[in-house]
Amino acid sequence: TTKRSDGYMKKMGNFKGHALPGSFFLLFGLWWSVKYPFRYLCQKRKNIYLGSKAGFQRLEFIEGIIKIVFALIGMMGEQFVPDGPHLKLYNNEKKQWNYLMNWQHATMYLFYGISGLVDIVTHSTNVLPEALDRMMLSLAVFMEGFLFYYHIHGRSMLDFHVHQLLLITVFGGALCIFLEVFFHNSIVLEMFRTSLCILHGSWLWQIGFVLYPPSGSTEWNQEDHNNIMFLTMCYCWHYAITLLIMAVNYTLVSW
Amino acid sequence: TTKRSDGYMKKMGNFKGHALPGSFFLLFGLWWSVKYPFRYLCQKRKNIYLGSKAGFQRLEFIEGIIKIVFALIGMMGEQFVPDGPHLKLYNNEKKQWNYLMNWQHATMYLFYGISGLVDIVTHSTNVLPEALDRMMLSLAVFMEGFLFYYHIHGRSMLDFHVHQLLLITVFGGALCIFLEVFFHNSIVLEMFRTSLCILHGSWLWQIGFVLYPPSGSTEWNQEDHNNIMFLTMCYCWHYAITLLIMAVNYTLVSW
Amino acid sequence: TTKRSDGYMKKMGNFKGHALPGSFFLLFGLWWSVKYPFRYLCQKRKNIYLGSKAGFQRLEFIEGIIKIVFALIGMMGEQFVPDGPHLKLYNNEKKQWNYLMNWQHATMYLFYGISGLVDIVTHSTNVLPEALDRMMLSLAVFMEGFLFYYHIHGRSMLDFHVHQLLLITVFGGALCIFLEVFFHNSIVLEMFRTSLCILHGSWLWQIGFVLYPPSGSTEWNQEDHNNIMFLTMCYCWHYAITLLIMAVNYTLVSW
Amino acid sequence: TTKRSDGYMKKMGNFKGHALPGSFFLLFGLWWSVKYPFRYLCQKRKNIYLGSKAGFQRLEFIEGIIKIVFALIGMMGEQFVPDGPHLKLYNNEKKQWNYLMNWQHATMYLFYGISGLVDIVTHSTNVLPEALDRMMLSLAVFMEGFLFYYHIHGRSMLDFHVHQLLLITVFGGALCIFLEVFFHNSIVLEMFRTSLCILHGSWLWQIGFVLYPPSGSTEWNQEDHNNIMFLTMCYCWHYAITLLIMAVNYTLVSW
Repeated sequence: TTKRSDGYMKKMGNFKGHALPGSFFLLFGLWWSVKYPFRYLCQKRKNIYLGSKAGFQRLEFIEGIIKIVFALIGMMGEQFVPDGPHLKLYNNEKKQWNYLMNWQHATMYLFYGISGLVDIVTHSTNVLPEALDRMMLSLAVFMEGFLFYYHIHGRSMLDFHVHQLLLITVFGGALCIFLEVFFHNSIVLEMFRTSLCILHGSWLWQIGFVLYPPSGSTEWNQEDHNNIMFLTMCYCWHYAITLLIMAVNYTLVSW
Repeated sequence: TTKRSDGYMKKMGNFKGHALPGSFFLLFGLWWSVKYPFRYLCQKRKNIYLGSKAGFQRLEFIEGIIKIVFALIGMMGEQFVPDGPHLKLYNNEKKQWNYLMNWQHATMYLFYGISGLVDIVTHSTNVLPEALDRMMLSLAVFMEGFLFYYHIHGRSMLDFHVHQLLLITVFGGALCIFLEVFFHNSIVLEMFRTSLCILHGSWLWQIGFVLYPPSGSTEWNQEDHNNIMFLTMCYCWHYAITLLIMAVNYTLVSW
Repeated sequence: TTKRSDGYMKKMGNFKGHALPGSFFLLFGLWWSVKYPFRYLCQKRKNIYLGSKAGFQRLEFIEGIIKIVFALIGMMGEQFVPDGPHLKLYNNEKKQWNYLMNWQHATMYLFYGISGLVDIVTHSTNVLPEALDRMMLSLAVFMEGFLFYYHIHGRSMLDFHVHQLLLITVFGGALCIFLEVFFHNSIVLEMFRTSLCILHGSWLWQIGFVLYPPSGSTEWNQEDHNNIMFLTMCYCWHYAITLLIMAVNYTLVSW
Repeated sequence: TTKRSDGYMKKMGNFKGHALPGSFFLLFGLWWSVKYPFRYLCQKRKNIYLGSKAGFQRLEFIEGIIKIVFALIGMMGEQFVPDGPHLKLYNNEKKQWNYLMNWQHATMYLFYGISGLVDIVTHSTNVLPEALDRMMLSLAVFMEGFLFYYHIHGRSMLDFHVHQLLLITVFGGALCIFLEVFFHNSIVLEMFRTSLCILHGSWLWQIGFVLYPPSGSTEWNQEDHNNIMFLTMCYCWHYAITLLIMAVNYTLVSW
């Protein structure tokens, strides 16, 4: 029974490993779906009091701090869980690398942390060019996609597919943010980024449910082509619901 | 004989499944091939009466409604044909997903419907940024291509090829409309989009004729490489004819 | 001996089939390498007499006519050579398509012809938007690449490789011209396009020499990986020489 | 023992073959990480004395000369090392190409040399359009990537992987510089290019250490998937350190 319990622990770990960053992206996406319409409408109605540049700079500053805090939590979590590397990269006894998965995840968080740092410096001083925060965020998102891309090699069909769908979101997001470097304050791009961010979060939850079904539910057949087709469609529905949520938030803000 | 008749029914269904959306794209494409030259020439000649912004906004509004109506018809058709899922997603008896093809097609229509909805809101109120209608249309077209891409896996060579050619049109269209987000009212992009829309429609008809030849004609050899080569060329001819039609319409409008 | 002579005829046909369009692209590229620096320097020195817009429009007009003439010659050649289809698309006796290769080549020429036509109309009337000539040229080049892409499937390694290198030039050219739709009169893009056009022509000659060595020389080993590596490098040298030629022409023009 | 010594010589050659160009890219990247922030801050503070255009043009001129010198050294080195082709392209005795690797490397250097030449002409006369220096640099970087791409075919898994990661940097760099043709003096793009240049250099060093470990260290297992995963992550760390170095330099410059 110890073994079974071990498996259960591992599964829980993996479920949380998807659900926690998923929640983080969901949170940020939902926040952006309020912030950007708000700023856009303020600027349009020339509401100088609410749409002041200084106020929004302070928000960006706070966003940066939150990013750093989350990134630190993520890195600590990956390193110091019982089943983690504890900052040890090479296992000299087994002559092999130590918990490379955890190290890779920590690396992903690291770049989000750097992005947060750049946010803070960009919006608290005026030494750095303003567009650098988006450039760095774009790089952080790209790095996530890059690491994922080499991560998912050789997995089972279903596992590969759901992560591949995630990659579309990630690289799409990196591209969108890169465009924002040139098209500053474009509300359309900002809302597109927001939608991809929410989708990113909700799809991470979905992956967690599909690959590591929490206690009780039966596992998915990993090789059934119908499951692949269903999940492809499911991805579209996630996006449709994302658009619905954004529409609701936009309406609420415009009132 | 019942079986044969069943096969015939299915073939007819599939032929219609290509011809109906094909007609829809053809219709929209032909309409655009009149509308955009007209607007361009009005603006150029400073004909304020005909080229008024309000008038064109009303047209966009009506286009949005037509899109929604078509999308609803499409979704209803996919769901409630005799051989359809009737809104039932999972077949508990057979322990498998229920008519996933139809569900996927309905999902494609759904996004075109959302695009129509955004058109209406964008052009009837001025709460939303104007470029959002193109962003949403681009997403709808991308979603069609995305679903198609995972749709055509593992089919016979000819089937795969004709759908792959369709994908070039679809992703080309999505890219073109995405560029229109940034290059507003660019007549060149609008006419490029129009040509791809007509090509999309006429190629759907061609696919219908090739894969589900209506009663009487013999079937195509699915594995003959010469057929592949012919259809590739045929695709180019469709585009050449599309350009001819657009040239004729442009000439008529300019008179 | 008849058979051998037949093979020789075929080889000559194929050599010419590469050398003739190659010469056409070389000619156009070399002409552009004089025209664009000339126009750029005229505009810079505000030499209104030589750099008049009307004069350059007349040149574009003539270019359009030359394109059409070449395209017609190409199409006629492909159709009415002894070993050609003579406008017959389907061979009812053999129950198969008739000389699809020639038809495909004729289709490539067709789109260049259309591009020439659009050039003429754009630069003789002012009904059409000016950027349409580049859009159409970009499409013509893309169509060439598109047809080539499905053309070279399943050939021997060397044959595949040299055509693949050609595709890089072709798609690069299509992209460059597409960018010119938005960045009008950008001398950098125009010279990039010119260099790709010359490379296109000289590489077609190279392909002719490699795959159909004219009488006397020995054939290349199609499966030797060293040949592949040499030709990859050779492609770079072609481009280096192209740049040299353009530099010489630029210097001559600036004097 | 002669054989072993030969192998050692070869390994050293290959290690140097990576470390020398690596040092070159590192040097250029580090120099740019000082130059671009300096120019940006000068322009921002309207410090006309230090930020004069003439001064920066002289710098570009000198950069061009250094590029040419390095390119010449590289080409000479590849040609006239004991184990090199000595300008002989074809070995008539063995009936095969002579040291194609060295020729390919020399070709890479050639294009950087051309780029240096264009830099000099662009910044010493005003005959050429200013953006041509970036266009040519972009082409030189693309050519490096292009040659590498066909270079690394059929190698062992680890060898292939580390070079593939290099390609991401190279093609990313080519794209970034191409964008700079249109977005002149964009500090964000310039710093992105700088970071890729440093990464390019440090990763070449890493490749040297991994594939040709200098005397003493054990060789890496070429087929172990964990090594692949570690190196992918290692690549990210290189980039993180690159960003750190750039941040330090930026801070120093701003003081």
